[in-house]
This record gives sequence, structure tokens and C-alpha cells, in this order.
Amino acid sequence: MKNLNIGMIGYGFMGRTHSNAYSQVNHFFPLKYKPVLKAVCARDAEKVRSFADQWGYESVETDWRKVVERKDIDAIDICTPNNLHKEIALAAAANGKMVLCEKPLSMNTAEGEEMVAAIERAGVPNTVWYNYRRAPAVTLAKQLIDSGKLGRIFHYRANFLQDWTISADLPQGGAALWRLDAAAAGSGVTGDLLAHCIDTALWLNGSITDVSAMTETFIKERKHTLTGQIEKVSIDDACTFFCHFKNGSLGLFESTRYARGHKALYTLEVNGEHASLKWDLHDLHRLQWFDHGDEGIVRGWRSVHVSDGDQPYMKNWWVPGLQIGYEHTFIHQVADFLKALEEGKPCSPTFREALETQKVCDAVISSAKERTWKTIAS
Amino acid sequence: MKNLNIGMIGYGFMGRTHSNAYSQVNHFFPLKYKPVLKAVCARDAEKVRSFADQWGYESVETDWRKVVERKDIDAIDICTPNNLHKEIALAAAANGKMVLCEKPLSMNTAEGEEMVAAIERAGVPNTVWYNYRRAPAVTLAKQLIDSGKLGRIFHYRANFLQDWTISADLPQGGAALWRLDAAAAGSGVTGDLLAHCIDTALWLNGSITDVSAMTETFIKERKHTLTGQIEKVSIDDACTFFCHFKNGSLGLFESTRYARGHKALYTLEVNGEHASLKWDLHDLHRLQWFDHGDEGIVRGWRSVHVSDGDQPYMKNWWVPGLQIGYEHTFIHQVADFLKALEEGKPCSPTFREALETQKVCDAVISSAKERTWKTIAS
Amino acid sequence: MKNLNIGMIGYGFMGRTHSNAYSQVNHFFPLKYKPVLKAVCARDAEKVRSFADQWGYESVETDWRKVVERKDIDAIDICTPNNLHKEIALAAAANGKMVLCEKPLSMNTAEGEEMVAAIERAGVPNTVWYNYRRAPAVTLAKQLIDSGKLGRIFHYRANFLQDWTISADLPQGGAALWRLDAAAAGSGVTGDLLAHCIDTALWLNGSITDVSAMTETFIKERKHTLTGQIEKVSIDDACTFFCHFKNGSLGLFESTRYARGHKALYTLEVNGEHASLKWDLHDLHRLQWFDHGDEGIVRGWRSVHVSDGDQPYMKNWWVPGLQIGYEHTFIHQVADFLKALEEGKPCSPTFREALETQKVCDAVISSAKERTWKTIAS
Amino acid sequence: MKNLNIGMIGYGFMGRTHSNAYSQVNHFFPLKYKPVLKAVCARDAEKVRSFADQWGYESVETDWRKVVERKDIDAIDICTPNNLHKEIALAAAANGKMVLCEKPLSMNTAEGEEMVAAIERAGVPNTVWYNYRRAPAVTLAKQLIDSGKLGRIFHYRANFLQDWTISADLPQGGAALWRLDAAAAGSGVTGDLLAHCIDTALWLNGSITDVSAMTETFIKERKHTLTGQIEKVSIDDACTFFCHFKNGSLGLFESTRYARGHKALYTLEVNGEHASLKWDLHDLHRLQWFDHGDEGIVRGWRSVHVSDGDQPYMKNWWVPGLQIGYEHTFIHQVADFLKALEEGKPCSPTFREALETQKVCDAVISSAKERTWKTIAS
Repeated sequence: MKNLNIGMIGYGFMGRTHSNAYSQVNHFFPLKYKPVLKAVCARDAEKVRSFADQWGYESVETDWRKVVERKDIDAIDICTPNNLHKEIALAAAANGKMVLCEKPLSMNTAEGEEMVAAIERAGVPNTVWYNYRRAPAVTLAKQLIDSGKLGRIFHYRANFLQDWTISADLPQGGAALWRLDAAAAGSGVTGDLLAHCIDTALWLNGSITDVSAMTETFIKERKHTLTGQIEKVSIDDACTFFCHFKNGSLGLFESTRYARGHKALYTLEVNGEHASLKWDLHDLHRLQWFDHGDEGIVRGWRSVHVSDGDQPYMKNWWVPGLQIGYEHTFIHQVADFLKALEEGKPCSPTFREALETQKVCDAVISSAKERTWKTIAS
Repeated sequence: MKNLNIGMIGYGFMGRTHSNAYSQVNHFFPLKYKPVLKAVCARDAEKVRSFADQWGYESVETDWRKVVERKDIDAIDICTPNNLHKEIALAAAANGKMVLCEKPLSMNTAEGEEMVAAIERAGVPNTVWYNYRRAPAVTLAKQLIDSGKLGRIFHYRANFLQDWTISADLPQGGAALWRLDAAAAGSGVTGDLLAHCIDTALWLNGSITDVSAMTETFIKERKHTLTGQIEKVSIDDACTFFCHFKNGSLGLFESTRYARGHKALYTLEVNGEHASLKWDLHDLHRLQWFDHGDEGIVRGWRSVHVSDGDQPYMKNWWVPGLQIGYEHTFIHQVADFLKALEEGKPCSPTFREALETQKVCDAVISSAKERTWKTIAS
Repeated sequence: MKNLNIGMIGYGFMGRTHSNAYSQVNHFFPLKYKPVLKAVCARDAEKVRSFADQWGYESVETDWRKVVERKDIDAIDICTPNNLHKEIALAAAANGKMVLCEKPLSMNTAEGEEMVAAIERAGVPNTVWYNYRRAPAVTLAKQLIDSGKLGRIFHYRANFLQDWTISADLPQGGAALWRLDAAAAGSGVTGDLLAHCIDTALWLNGSITDVSAMTETFIKERKHTLTGQIEKVSIDDACTFFCHFKNGSLGLFESTRYARGHKALYTLEVNGEHASLKWDLHDLHRLQWFDHGDEGIVRGWRSVHVSDGDQPYMKNWWVPGLQIGYEHTFIHQVADFLKALEEGKPCSPTFREALETQKVCDAVISSAKERTWKTIAS
Repeated sequence: MKNLNIGMIGYGFMGRTHSNAYSQVNHFFPLKYKPVLKAVCARDAEKVRSFADQWGYESVETDWRKVVERKDIDAIDICTPNNLHKEIALAAAANGKMVLCEKPLSMNTAEGEEMVAAIERAGVPNTVWYNYRRAPAVTLAKQLIDSGKLGRIFHYRANFLQDWTISADLPQGGAALWRLDAAAAGSGVTGDLLAHCIDTALWLNGSITDVSAMTETFIKERKHTLTGQIEKVSIDDACTFFCHFKNGSLGLFESTRYARGHKALYTLEVNGEHASLKWDLHDLHRLQWFDHGDEGIVRGWRSVHVSDGDQPYMKNWWVPGLQIGYEHTFIHQVADFLKALEEGKPCSPTFREALETQKVCDAVISSAKERTWKTIAS
């Protein structure tokens, strides 16, 4: 067993999911590498100390530049708000560290290109935490599509619906609500939620060639946590787009934080000539599967409880019928990252792959702004 | 096209479903017989006239004996409370009329045996309105079981759950509530609801050999509509039993009118060696189907939308995806009765077949009373 | 009871649903008018005679001009392919007949405007068969929205997904497949399926101000039934659009006949500030309802089985728990038309109201063609 | 933070779930005690060493008597087959160790009584791993029932359906299949599966007074793994019983390993006067809730996604919409055990409480054998 010393920067919600993944991965997956929680870094010394104690980090830092320079750190995990991703990634690469970066890769395509160039120049292993690829049911969807069982694809459809920002009293900005602040997040639902949908879509269905989008900001002004002032809201509250995929299929994507009744409902559906599949995050352990080849009188959508040993990742968990949950998607990503390290292979999505999602996001934002179709540069 | 003159006795809820079936059947099913609404009979002259006008009955009667003696009537349809079934059926048979009798066949096995003897002596076509057999999804279940796709059957499970009698203020007895009056109904949920479950079970899974039951009357006294007095409630509010089928499988049945949240939830499930199926009345146009022979990674319960032309009865209705409803089960029973008439065959369930259900009901009631197993006489 | 003599032109699938509605309406709804099946018209004398016999039409015609001129006809029901709607409606109006026209109103807005002008000039009662408004669950949705329970509306979302034209071997055109022939249908899924979604949307959520659309024809050539030749397919196989509603909410619509696994899945969802609702045609007797005002720990989507007497139209049918089906939406429309006649009121959607749907359809088609946003003329 | 040194005996499937719980609990729950994986014990030295390495146990033992005598162990966790529970528990108690015992408590009531006496004499903290009580949705059900929202309870219904032993080729006995060997397990589905259902039922709905049961062994003979011989199967493959609860409600329970299509489907439903609830293990993060107090037109079963911070245990996990899984129920039990230790209170179910489940199991088995009702000694 070989140690892989982790230095994590940022310790918010994603800090917990990543720390948990590092702690759990060797209990369930047979691997040659073992992550060691070497250091965690954040500006508030007291809070980061408390976090370190809870998760067993060996040390804390309050300046991320120190972490990326420490000799005893092998890999940098970037869990900060989006506006710091680039700077940290560049410094980490410059110091020869592996980088695991939270999604979205960057604030925009230009930043992302800089990051890809730096990371590839450094030649370090890298990955971006688009964790939903590793929900076993989504990985199973990938297997099914790649097997050809669906035949020609006609439609790809994805939504990410939430309802937590409907109240006009909710402020924007600050530690807890940086996702509502365009300066920290880059965009609203497009980068936060649609980026997930796009990443999965590109993985399952290939490249997107052009997009046409509409965005909306329902609540135009909110108090800013940092200034205490009522300020204009610059993020997109809702974003819808349709598109063409390179394989000739049509795509339809929607995200909003104003869909009352949906907490975090990421859904996707793929319609093929011979078969179709559906998945949603609220019941992430199930895949809906329709096979037109089934005998006609008993043909119907199958609700597949993805908990058997022959389904992706599941032989490492419990027994059939016993479901896993959200955090397991991160454990799977770490397991795959460590396995790739063993085998000297890249771990998808790499920075380069995640840049494709960034390009689509940028095209979506500018299409909505200019009310016109936008082509994705290939 | 040959007319079949109907004389219907009783005109309550079931009177409407049957009248509708007679009115609709020739619009959708190609048949040689055409039911003609010749006469409807009930004691209240004004009400029965109004009913006749609404449905287009040619005449009304207030004495059922007249109807069974009328020369221009071919078939008697018995829609009265259970305590009149026997007398009317016997008179109808004596007059050489065909008989279509509402379920349950009779108040008890002894009455039922008398009715079977009379009807068979008369040699007249006869059927009992166990309409749920003709929900297309249930008929499809029958086809699937008979095809051998399920293999050896291990379990048969059925519920009929309602919640409309929970209020202690609901009275018992009288025209609208005779089902709560043991004198008119014979029993409570056993004859009203479990009889349906048992009929379907015998049809799908064969004979029951012995039963062990429990009944309960939750509200012990209610005002009686006819007397205006608080009287003891003699019906069973809830009844549960388990049993052995002749084929070695186990049965489990439950019915109640105290299951808050369920309006008329008749559910059934059959578990076989190779496949299982489920159905429920609240979504009667669907069949749940599980086939263990499906490829493991995409094995799951299929929700079959029974609306295609190759599924039972559905080529006579609309197009795939467009569901039918409750009343269609009665139309199907009339269609099958008329078709059987054409072909000179019996229409299931006949009086003799319905008597089997009566025997199980009687065994259930006496098992519950005596707290012991009861064998069903074959 | 007053007779309303119906002359129906066309007798295909819609001819059956309308004939059934006329036959059934007085059995279930207390009304002063009674439709009489006076005449049915189609070019094939033998087939129309057989249809008339099955449904009890008193006479047949093979020239629709004769029907609209017959003195004994009160109302003309147009069930022909779309390309005949205008001509028949104009002639009917000129003869002072009421008109019930199948949807969509017309081939395009220009035709529709001519029809509205003619019908209003004639001052005759008129309606368009957008039957899904009268699914009880959809009518209930209307009540809920109008009650203000949802508060400000943020999103309106509707799909109409089918899969019956995926096979490249399916021909286009002719009696059975005129919906695939642009010359007869005007458009593909836009007029056939999205028109339903748009009509319901306008009814539930008010006017649409602008749209941006994408269409696709997946199978470019098919054999034409009438010519026997392989010909270019001119209809849209799939159509997606997003839009703004006048009330500030966003709309997202999609329709396709290439969504494997969906027979006729019309779904709609409305997200409001305080509550949301969902409905779909495959379980048309249910409404999904989410009320944010519910106590937090037990808040969730409610699956409402729309079968109680206090829910729209349901007191006229059976008892709680017993579902109705597809054809009942047509019966409700006839019931409402007759009731409106009694009361001297218009029956929604009138020709004028249905013209709004036509305008949106036209804007959608031209937006897709020109790849740009289109404003709806108000 | 105070260490609690764990000595675990047995390391099979339950060994993993318990080890995971000890590893995870302090990451998510603020507690004063911290479990330390001091020792794990099993007969096979090599395998137990490998297990210890994977989970970080500090030492291994191959003789359980040594573990219970070690001074550095505070708590004994019994994960062995059922036939060893008693002996180990008695020895642990005699050595003053706390005991966490896998369910069912014992092979039978007599053993259980001995264990309760010993553990109470020793005065050591104790608990039995009936983990499903701690599924957040089940704990929420407990809160709802205790709040009185359901009113008078009429029905309690539970199933535990599996299908993994249908093949006649599956052997019985040995390390992996001791649950099929009556000598090791005591009973079949009754002790393995129904014991869970009964424990939850007693917790939610109070005492059971009498039972009537039926059991079946579908496959009469199987090869025994240890002897290599075809031997009689002595366990129950299926078990059904109904019962009365002390509060006047009726109970209905069923378990089988022959329900094709169900992997581990534990379902429960409680019907009260005012409200009802349902839960199942295949979607353990949801609770179905029906409140008759809801406005009639939008009354329906609510599907509650139990993932909000105000729902049991969930503030310690992620954010609304992100589900947890099976293993979390064990983490919750450890969290509650440690919290109870802090507060000097018992942790439910204690040995004494678990003995009640044993009594019901024994009554069920003997009722089935003697085909008669059995009273539960209070």
C-alpha cells in the first residue's frame, strides 16, 4: 500500500464529501494507493482546525500557497469557490502536484484553457469532480449506450431542478451563499447545475455542436452578505437550452432554482432507436430502462434497483436490495483516480475533458444574452 | 344482429354500470347479439322511471316477479342487495330466463348451491359479475400465468383496502348503505370485497384447500337508517386470511374499510419461480411484470401500460397510450357473455364457478369465528 | 329535453371518440340538450354505412356539402384531416350551423383568421376539440392555479412524447397516415401534439409573448401511400421550443415521435412560488401536487387520485377510487358544450381562442426555420 | 473525546456494516465518545488478519473467549451466527463488558431470558442491532405516530420479501449460508427477516397479544455445505402471521425468500383514523404519508424525500435532495448508543426490549406448527 498525501484547499460542503471519500475508499475498494489526509487549508484558523479534527487531517494551513509548496503533499484538492480554481491549479501544477479540482473547472473557457495548458505542461495526473458520472446507475447507462443496445440516439434530455432560492429574503454572497454571487461563481445555475448535466451528456452522448439558450433572473436584487447592501443579482436563476449533438441527436437542457417541490432533482433521459433510459438524483440507486425488443404484451419501463454485484461499483458495497447514497459517487471517483494512478492512465474527466463542458456553458450564456444560436468550437 | 332483451332488477350503483355496459358493448365489439334495455324494476316507481328515462329502458316495473315472467324478456340481470339474489334467480330460472347475477352469488354456500342446482336444471346461460377479471391487465395476468412463464407458483397475495366507513357517525342499512347491514349483505368486507379477490385468485391460481382467518368489527354500534336506532354492527369491518392453494402455493388475503388513504385499492401479486406480476385497481390500466430471465444488469419490475392492440380487449378501444377505466370491465363481461351465447359456450364465472368463491367466504367467516383452520370442501 | 342534430364529417379515430361522446353524455350528465346522430359523411359509401350502423347514425352522406346544407342538421362536427377544416367550417357557418371542429383549428394562422371571422359573422356556437383540458385532473389544475394557491408562476413545462414513427419502413400519407403528410396535416408534431400542449398552457398560464424553436426530421424520405413513391418527408418529427409567458414565467415545450418507450406521454408541470403541480396522460386520472405550505417534515409530492365527487366532472361518474379513461375527456367537452348552449354562453376553446394556439404554432415553425426568436402578435 | 474500545467477534457481512459504523460515526455526529477498533476475532487467522487490515483493527484474535477477557476492551460486538450469541453475551457480561449484539437476540425465548438476566445482573450498557429503526424515514414514522397525528390505529402491515433462495441448487449451511441452517440460525425467515418487522412494529405500535401463523418450506432438501450430503431443510422458507396488538389494531406480517423480483423488500404500513404512512427498504430514503386532514380535492399520498435537516438524523449528512443509504442505519445506531452512554441512558432496543421480539417469533413458530392461535406472555 502506497500513501498518497492529500492537501485540501477549502473545507465547505465539498470539503466534507471529498474528505469522506478519502476516508472510505480503502475500506471498500482493493487499491494500491491509500489517501492520507495530510493538510487542509482555509482562511479561518479556528474553523479549519475544528474541521481537521473531525476528519483527522494531520495539519492545517491558512494560506493555500503554503499547501501547494509543501514537499509532503502529493495531490492538491481544490474545493474553493470557482474564482480561485485557476490560480490554485496553476500553482499546484507549477509545483508538480496532482490536482483534483471541484467542478466547474473554471469561471470561463479562457481560464479553463490556461488551466489545461498548465496541467498538461506539468504532466501531472488530474481530474475534475463531476461526481454524478459515478452514480452506479449513470455508469450503467454509459455501459448500455456504449454496448449499442440503444441504437441510433434521437434525444438527450436533462434537467436540474431546485427550489431553495425562491424566497426574496435570501441574501447573496459570502461563505455560505457564494453560489449566488456572480463574482465568486461565474454564473448561476449554468455553472453550478447545468455543468453537471452537460458533463454527463458529453460523456454519454458525445460532442455538442451548437446551442440556443434562454436565461432568467427572477429576483433582480438581493442583499449582499458581505456588503450588507441591496445589490443587483447577476447570476442566472434559470437556464434552458436546446442543442444538436454531433451524432445527430437533439438535446434539451433545463436548470432552475425556482422549481417548487424539487430539492436537487437532476434527471436525464436518452431515447434511442431500440431502447431508452432515464435516471434521477432523488432516487439515484435506480435506472429506468425500456427495451423495445421485449415481448410486446409485457413491454414496459423497468425500474432497475442498481444494487447487485454485477452492476457498476456495487460488488464493493452490500448485498442486492441495499442501496447506497449520494456520497458514494465521490468515493467512486477517488477509487477510479487511485486505480488510474496504479495503471498510469488518466482519470476521466480530466481538465481537458472538463474544458468541453466549460465551452458549452460559455456558449449557453452568450447565446442567451444575444438571443441567437452559438456554435461550439471543436 | 339478434336482440337480447334485458330485464334488470335493481338500479343502484351496479344498475348504472350494467346499463352502461349494455349501451356500449355494440359500439366497440363486433357481436351477433345486441342487448335491448327492455325493462328495469325497482320498488320506487318514480325513481325507477327517472332511471329508465336516463338510460333508455323501454318500460319499468315495480314488482320483480312480473319481470321474470314477462315473455319479452330474455335475460334477467340481478342488481339487488345480496339477500334477494337467490329468490330472483330461482324464479328467473323457473321461467327459463338467462341470468346475470351481481356478485357475490349468494348470502352463503347453502343458498348458492340451491341457485346452481336451479340454474343448471333450467339449462339457461348464466354468469356472475366478477368484473375485475376483465380488467385488461388482469386478463393479461391470466394469459401470462397460463402460458407457464411464471413457472411454479409460490405466493398469491391480494388486498382490498378502503377507508369510507371510518367515521363512527356513518349509519348502517337502508338503500345507500345496505352493504353495512348484515341482514341485507350477508357479511361485510368478506362478501363485498374479498369475494372479488377470491374469485380472481381461483381463476388465476386454482383451488384453495384450507384457510385460517381473523375478522374485526372496529365500530361496534351504529345508527340503523331504517329504524333510526343505535344497533349492534354485525358485519366484519376487516378480514384477513391465509390459505393453501391446491398447487402448493401460499395465499394471503386482506380486506378492510379502515385503511385510511385507500379509496378502493384492490391489489394482487403472484410470485412464481421465473417471474412475478402485480396489479392494482387504482391504476387498473397497468400491469407490473418482473421476468427473472431478463439480463441481470437491467432486470427490474416493468410497468406495462396495457393499452396496445395486442393486449386483451384493447384492440377494441383507442390507440396505444390511451387508457380505459373502471366501467370498461363490465362492458368486457357483456361482450364475453354475448360472444359465449353466439358460440353456445358458458361465460365464466358461471354460477357453479362463483359458488367456489362462496365456499371460501363461508370458510373464512367460520374460521375467524372459531379461531381455527377450515378445510374447503371440494 | 331538446334534440341537437349532429352531422359529422369524417369518421376516423376522432369520429369514434366524438360519436361515443354524443352517445354517452346524457347517461351521465343532466342536460337540457340531447345530441342526435343525424348524419355521418365520408367519401367511401360502404365504410361510412358500416360506421353509421355501428354507432346508430340515422343517415349517411358521401359529399360533405350536402351535410352542411341539410335543414335537419343543427351542428357540424369536423373530423377530417386538417386541410379540410377551413372550407367545411366556412360552409357550415354560411349555412348557420354550429361548428365543433377537431384540433388544430387550421393549417395556419391565415386560415384560422378566416375561420374566426366567418364563424363570428355567422354568430353560431363553436368550439374546438382540445379535449385534454377536460381531463378532470387538468381541470383541477386550472382550478388550483386560478385559486392563487401556486402564487407567482416561474415555470411551465410540457412534453408530448411518442415513438410510433421510428421505423423507417412506415409510409406517409393516405387515410391512416395523413398525419405524416404535410399537405394534409400542415405540420408534424407541432400541429398534432404541441398544439395540445400549447392550448392547455394558454388556458392555464395565459399568453405567450415570444418563442425560440428547433425542429428536426429524422427520417428524411418515406414511401408515400398514395403515390407508392419514395418522397421527401416535409413534416417535423420533433419540435422543441422555449418561450416567455406574459405573466413573466418561462415556458419549455417538446414534442417528438421518436422517444422510444413513450406511447402518448403528454406531461405538464407548473412551478409556482408556493406550490407546483404535474400531470401526465399515461395516468390521466392522477394529479401530482406539491404544497410548500405543508409541514416541513412531511412535505412531499402528493399523488392525487382524481376520482372523488368534489373533483371536476367526477360526481357524474362512479365512486372514489374508480378511474375513468381517455374517451371521457370528449364526453366532458360535449357536456360543457351543451351546458353552454343552455346558458347561451360560449364553450371554451372557441375558434377565436383556438386561433391563439395556431399563432404560437406558426411562430414556432418559423422560428425553427429561421433559427431566431419570434414574437407572437397579440 | 473519550475512547470506547471495541472488540468485535465475527467479521462477516455484519462485521463490515458495524466496522463502517464505528469508522464513520465521529465524522458526522458530534459525540463525546469515539469508538476505537481494538480487536476483531474469528477462527480463520488469515482471513481475520486481512479484515483487520482493511478496517484498521489494532489486533486480531482467533478465540472469542480471549476477547471478552481482554482488559483493553470496553465493548463486545457480537456478529456471529445466532447459535453463539448467548454464550458470548454471558461471558461478556460476566467480564463487565458492554454488549452490542446482532439481531435476533437469541435462538429462542429461553436463551434470550438467560441473556437478559445476565446482562442486567452485570448492569452493562447493551443494545441489539435492529438497525432499520434508524432509517430516518422509519424514525420519522415513529415521531409521527407518537405525535398522535394518526389517531387510533386500525392496521399494521409489514412484509419482508426476498428471492435469493429459489434455486434448488443452492446449498445450505457453512460460513456463507448459515442462515439456511436451522442449527446455526434457529429459524429461517422468521428470525432473519420477520424479527426486523416485529421489532419495528413493537416500537411503533406497542405490544402484540396473540398470533396465528403459517410457515412453509418450499424446497424440502438441499445439499449441506459442511457434510456434502443432501439433507432435510429445517428452516421456514416463508412465514405469514396475523395478530392483535394491545392497542386494538390488527397486524399482518409476511416474509419469504421465494418472492421473485424482490431483493430485500421490507415494507411497512400503518393505517390510523386520521392519517396513514408507508415505508419500504428499496427506497429507504422516502416515507409515504397520507393526511386525511388535507383539503379534499388535493388529498393524496405524499412521497416525502427524507433528506432535510429537520428530519431525523439528516442534519448530520448532506443537503436536501441528497439521499443516504443502507449502511447509515448502523451509523445512527452507534451514534445513539454513544449518545446514550454520554447521558447514562439505555439505548433502544436493549436486550430486554429485543426479548419481546423473540417471544413473538417463538409464538409464531409454534402457532404455525400446531395450527392454532398462540398468546404472547406479557
